[in-house]
Amino acid sequence: HELIKVAKTQGDYQVDITNEESIKALFEKVGRVDGIISVTGNLHFSPISEMTGQGFNIGLNDKLLGQVNLALIGQNYLNEGGSITLTSGIVSQQPIKGGTNASTVNAALEGFVKSAAIELKNGQRINAISPSVVTESLDVYGPFFPGYEPVSAQRVAMAFQRSIEGGLTGQTFNVW
Amino acid sequence: HELIKVAKTQGDYQVDITNEESIKALFEKVGRVDGIISVTGNLHFSPISEMTGQGFNIGLNDKLLGQVNLALIGQNYLNEGGSITLTSGIVSQQPIKGGTNASTVNAALEGFVKSAAIELKNGQRINAISPSVVTESLDVYGPFFPGYEPVSAQRVAMAFQRSIEGGLTGQTFNVW
Repeated sequence: HELIKVAKTQGDYQVDITNEESIKALFEKVGRVDGIISVTGNLHFSPISEMTGQGFNIGLNDKLLGQVNLALIGQNYLNEGGSITLTSGIVSQQPIKGGTNASTVNAALEGFVKSAAIELKNGQRINAISPSVVTESLDVYGPFFPGYEPVSAQRVAMAFQRSIEGGLTGQTFNVW
Repeated sequence: HELIKVAKTQGDYQVDITNEESIKALFEKVGRVDGIISVTGNLHFSPISEMTGQGFNIGLNDKLLGQVNLALIGQNYLNEGGSITLTSGIVSQQPIKGGTNASTVNAALEGFVKSAAIELKNGQRINAISPSVVTESLDVYGPFFPGYEPVSAQRVAMAFQRSIEGGLTGQTFNVW
């Protein structure tokens, strides 16, 4: 595949997924594609006893609505038979302490792809990948995932390949 | 039980769940309670091909963040051993056309209660009720739920009773 790498400040192109105009500008520059892969989004970590609506909104506006907007706008730039693959995460099913915003957002993304899949046109597909904590990020995130079996980035990448090159739609691929 | 009925414009007290100050003012007036039951929230219905981020945000800010804020603020006014029961809906698992915002929000609420349950203190519990289309509202919502077996409001009420008077927490009770 020809890969077009996009990030907030790095990559071939830059985008701010919290800004719909930025997403539209990105696709106007890149043009039509066969696949959209999103592995991004900020979340808010806090004990629920101290959580505020404002904090909770960080994950809703960023990882959730950012990826949703990428899919909503991206569907118009996706070739026939193309696919959209978003990223959720294990805490949608197996919560961690302080991770209620992440559990909510990840579960939301899994609900989104399940529903969006029944409406996409021209053979377009949409799935989510839900990894456990990634081995390569254990030094940062390991302490928050006690007893969670880490998975290599290579294993996670295989799930993305399954979504992109396979035929399934509306699914969440758990990598754990 | 002694019931305190709250709605946006009716009931014993009024509250705007999209406004944290309004929720706090409600609990300041009502005082401590043994249970919080939320059966409310606006959603946005639209084909995904025409869906915008702005439209999508309606469900995120209203049914999702509104119920989340009710739980986050409510935990401070909930007696020991008290419970919070939110409402999701069948489309989290079985999407309908035009209902992607509802599927996302309902799945999010189910993720929220699953995670919040592991952190609530003093024996507090939290669950979600996920009804199918309700028999009493078939004249309005029936056409959107082809082949979905309707459930009576009485059956749905039993699930709320199971959540409130039972011992389970972090669960979604499907009424379908």
